[in-house]
Amino acid sequence: MASEGGRRGRGGAGGGREARRASRQSGAVTTAKYITRNIPFTEVCSEEQLEIIERNADTVLAEVGIEFRDDAEVIDLWKKAGAKVEGERVRFEKGMLQELIKTAPSQFTQHARNPAKSVEIGGGNTVFAPVYGPPFVRDLDQGRRYGTIEDFENIVKLVYSSTYLHHSGGTVCEPVDIPVNKRHLDMVYAHMRYSDKPFMGSVTAPDRAEDTVAMCRLLFGEEFVDQNCVVINLINANSPMVFDETMVGALKVYARANQACIVSPFIISGAMSPASVAGTLTQALAEGLAGCALTQLVRPGAPVVFGMFSASMSMQSGAPTFGTPEPALILTAGAQLVRRLGLPFRSGGSLCGSKIPDAQAAYESAHTLMPAVGAGVNFMLHSAGWLEGGLVSSYEKLIMDADQLGMMQRYAQGVDVTEEGQAMDAIREVGPGKHYLGCGHTNRNFETAFYQSKVADYGSFEQWESEGALDTAQRANNRWKKLLAQYEAPEIDPGVEEALKAYVAEKKAAVPDASY
Amino acid sequence: MASEGGRRGRGGAGGGREARRASRQSGAVTTAKYITRNIPFTEVCSEEQLEIIERNADTVLAEVGIEFRDDAEVIDLWKKAGAKVEGERVRFEKGMLQELIKTAPSQFTQHARNPAKSVEIGGGNTVFAPVYGPPFVRDLDQGRRYGTIEDFENIVKLVYSSTYLHHSGGTVCEPVDIPVNKRHLDMVYAHMRYSDKPFMGSVTAPDRAEDTVAMCRLLFGEEFVDQNCVVINLINANSPMVFDETMVGALKVYARANQACIVSPFIISGAMSPASVAGTLTQALAEGLAGCALTQLVRPGAPVVFGMFSASMSMQSGAPTFGTPEPALILTAGAQLVRRLGLPFRSGGSLCGSKIPDAQAAYESAHTLMPAVGAGVNFMLHSAGWLEGGLVSSYEKLIMDADQLGMMQRYAQGVDVTEEGQAMDAIREVGPGKHYLGCGHTNRNFETAFYQSKVADYGSFEQWESEGALDTAQRANNRWKKLLAQYEAPEIDPGVEEALKAYVAEKKAAVPDASY
Repeated sequence: MASEGGRRGRGGAGGGREARRASRQSGAVTTAKYITRNIPFTEVCSEEQLEIIERNADTVLAEVGIEFRDDAEVIDLWKKAGAKVEGERVRFEKGMLQELIKTAPSQFTQHARNPAKSVEIGGGNTVFAPVYGPPFVRDLDQGRRYGTIEDFENIVKLVYSSTYLHHSGGTVCEPVDIPVNKRHLDMVYAHMRYSDKPFMGSVTAPDRAEDTVAMCRLLFGEEFVDQNCVVINLINANSPMVFDETMVGALKVYARANQACIVSPFIISGAMSPASVAGTLTQALAEGLAGCALTQLVRPGAPVVFGMFSASMSMQSGAPTFGTPEPALILTAGAQLVRRLGLPFRSGGSLCGSKIPDAQAAYESAHTLMPAVGAGVNFMLHSAGWLEGGLVSSYEKLIMDADQLGMMQRYAQGVDVTEEGQAMDAIREVGPGKHYLGCGHTNRNFETAFYQSKVADYGSFEQWESEGALDTAQRANNRWKKLLAQYEAPEIDPGVEEALKAYVAEKKAAVPDASY
Repeated sequence: MASEGGRRGRGGAGGGREARRASRQSGAVTTAKYITRNIPFTEVCSEEQLEIIERNADTVLAEVGIEFRDDAEVIDLWKKAGAKVEGERVRFEKGMLQELIKTAPSQFTQHARNPAKSVEIGGGNTVFAPVYGPPFVRDLDQGRRYGTIEDFENIVKLVYSSTYLHHSGGTVCEPVDIPVNKRHLDMVYAHMRYSDKPFMGSVTAPDRAEDTVAMCRLLFGEEFVDQNCVVINLINANSPMVFDETMVGALKVYARANQACIVSPFIISGAMSPASVAGTLTQALAEGLAGCALTQLVRPGAPVVFGMFSASMSMQSGAPTFGTPEPALILTAGAQLVRRLGLPFRSGGSLCGSKIPDAQAAYESAHTLMPAVGAGVNFMLHSAGWLEGGLVSSYEKLIMDADQLGMMQRYAQGVDVTEEGQAMDAIREVGPGKHYLGCGHTNRNFETAFYQSKVADYGSFEQWESEGALDTAQRANNRWKKLLAQYEAPEIDPGVEEALKAYVAEKKAAVPDASY
C-alpha cells in the first residue's frame, strides 16, 4: 500500500485525510472486513480433468483464435506481441498468453476513500459486491418498474448500511431517468458521495471510463491514482470468442490508468458456448486468457481479475437459468483453473431467475452463493439484490441476500480450535444429562457463538402468527425502510465534494443529452 | 448381496420374486439410483484441527463418560467389554471404542422390495430420505394441522413418485389419529405397500421395533432378513452424553436382527452441547462412538451409521436455528471425522426454521443441503419436506426440496470430460461471433445437457404474469396434487399383502389403545 499521504483530494487542505477521519467517527454503520478464508477451497475437478480443459483451451486459442473488433490499436498490440493476426482474428501459440499474464499481480488492494474499507482482491480473500446492471427495480410497495437515480442512490445507501457487503458495486440499477450519455457521472458521484466503500466505474464508452478516472483523481489525488487501484471495472467478452470495440476501449482506459479490469466471458451455455460444462470452461478459459493478457500489453502490472459468468439454459423457453448444478460446477472448476494461472477470480453471486423474492429466488441464489464461497471466488459481483435473471434490482432481495453474506462470512472463518473454541471446560462442567444454558463457557460466548440473522424469523409459530404471519420478503421490506430512514451519509471533505459536483455539472453541460 | 432366491415372502408361491417382477413392470415412476459421487469431498478442517477434536473426544470418553440409563443388560455388555462402569456411567479408555467399531461395515446395502431401488450406504454414496418426525402437516389449502394417517400415506406416495428421493423414510409425519401404541404398524405397512423404496422402522419402544422386524420378515423372508439389511432405524442420543432405555432398547432389537441403526446425537448447540463448533463436534464424536460401538457389542458386524444432527440457537428466543453457518461447519467437519473412523455418516437434509415455504425456508434448506452433499453425507434424512424446525411436514416443501435434490444429484456427478463432454467439435464448428443453438453437438445434447427444474419458473416476466404470477409454493401445490392424482401403487404379491394386513390387524386387536 502507498503511504496515506499520497491519497489527498485536490479540494481543501488535508483533503481525503480529514474525510477519512470524519468517516471513521460517523459511527453507527459497521462493515465487516473482506473475507480472509480459513477453510480449504472446494474442488470439483481432478488434476487430470483440469489438464484436459487447459489443453483444449490452448487448442482453441491456437486453431480458432479470438476476434478483436474495430480496434486497430489492439490488433497492432497483438502483432507486436507475436500473435498470429489475420484481419481481426488473433491466434496464439501455446503458452503465450500464460506468459503474458505473469506481469499481473496475483493479489492487489482496491482502495476505498475510507481506508478501513479498502479490500484485498486475490489469494484467500473474498469481496462481496452488489447486483450490477438491471434496468428494472422491484419492491413490495411499487412492484416492478424502471430504475431511477433515486433508486440508484437508495441502493447505494442500503449497500453502505450493510455490514457484509464489502463493496459499493457499480451499476446497482440503471437510472433510466438520466440520459444514457450522462448517467455514468451521477452513478460514479453517488458511489463516491453516499458511500465510503470501494466502487466500480463506467465501461459503456471509453470517454465515460475517462470520466470515471478523472473523478477518481479528484477524490483520491492524481499521484495516488496512478500508483494504486481505486476503481474496478467490468469488461465482458462477447462470447463466443469476440471482444468488441466498446469493451476493449474501456479496458484500455482503465489498464493505462493502472486501474483494475475484470475480464469476464458472460456465457449462457448452449447458446454462447457448447451445451456442456467442460466445453464452456474451455471456451471461457480461452476468452479470459486473451482478455487478461491484453491488459498486460496495455500496461504491464495493471491489476486484472479473471471472470467467469455462466448460466445454463431452459429447454422450454431458451431463457438463462441460474442456481442450477451446471453453473455451480463451472464456477468451482473455473476457480481451480484460474488459481493455477495465479490471477484473482470473479464469479458467483446470488443469481436467480425468479420474478419475485420467493423460495425459487432463495434456492437459486444459495446454490450460486455457497459454491462461489466454497470455490474461493475473490471478487463476487451480484452478491445481493439480483432478481429475474439480472433484469431486476430488488430492494427486498438485497436485504435478504446480504443476510446470507453474513452467514458466508462466518462460514469461511472455519472452525475455531482455540482453547475457548474447544470448550472442554464446558463439557467437564456440565456432564451427562444436564444443559449448557447457564454454564460459564456459554455465558462468555453466548452473544457471538452463532450467526444471528436480522431477516429470518426464529420465534414460535404462535408468536409469528400474532405478529402478522409475515413472510421473508415482508420482513425485508420493513428492514430496508428502516435502514434508509436511519441512513446518514459518510462525511466528505467539502472541497472534494465541490470539485466532484463541478466536474459532473461541467461534463453534463458540455454535450446534448443522448440515448446511446 | 445375497442371492435373489433368499428374499421370498412367506405368502403366496414365488412370493417376493413375483412382486419384484410386477414392480419392475409398473412403469411410469422412475427413481434415480442413489448418488455415487464423482467430485472430491468438501473439507473445512485441517488434519491438525481434526486431531484436536479427536483427542478431546477421547478425553471426554475417558474422564466424563456416557450414561446408559435403565438398562442392566447394556451395562453388563460394557463391563464385559472392559469399560469402566460406575452405576450407569460408563467410561472408556482411549482407543477402545475405535477398536470396537472395526467390526461394523464401512458400507452396506439396504435392500428394497424392488431390488432396483436398493441403496448402498457408505463410501462415496449419498441416499436421500424425506423428513422424519413432524406432528404437524401443512399445505396451502388447509394450512397447519395435526398429521393423520391419510397425510402419512399421501407423503409416502409423493416420495414414491419423486425421482430423486431414493428412500421412503420413516415417520414422514406423525399420524396422530391413530393410537400411539398402534400407529407404527400402519406406518410400516404404508411404506411396504404404497412404495417399493427402502424404508425405516419404529424406534419408540422395543416391542414396536420387534413388530417392524416381524413385518420385514413377512415381506422379505426370514432367512433373507437375518443375513441382509432391509430396514434402517434412527437411534437418537439424549445429549449431552446420555442414552435412554427406549432408544437403547430399539437399538438392541435392530442390531440383534442384523438391521441398521443410525446412532445420532441430536444437538442444539448452546443448550445440549457447548456454544461452539469444536465443542459440539467433540461431544457428538464421543456420543456417537459410544452408541455405534454398542451395536457391535450386541452383534458384531451389524450395520451402523454414525449420525450428527445439530442446530445453532437463537439468542433472542432460544429456538433452534437452521441453515446457519455453524451447523454447516459441524456437519462438514463431522463427515471428515467419521470418514476417518470408517463408518457411514448421516447428517444434513433440507432443514429450516421458517413457518412457511418461503425464501427463509429455501435459503436455510439450501444452506444445509449443499454443504451436506459436498461433505459426502451417506444417509441424508430430512432431505425434503421439513418445515418449522421439524414440527411440520409440508406438502409443498416436499416438492420444492425434491427438485433441489435432483440438482444435487447432477452436481455430484461432476464434470464430464468424455469427448462428447469436451465438445471441441462444437467450438470448432461455431467459431467467433456465432451461436451454438443449432450446431451438431447442441442438437445431440440439448435435452440432457442441463438440469430442468419442474418447480422453477423460467418463462418471461410477461408470460409468468399472464399465468397468474404464481410463487414457488403455489406451483408446488399444483404439482403435488397432480402427482397424487397420477399415483398408482406398486404391485405386491397378494399373499404377502394379506400376511402383512393380518399381522397388523392381529397386533392391533391384541391390546387396548394407548396414548404413550
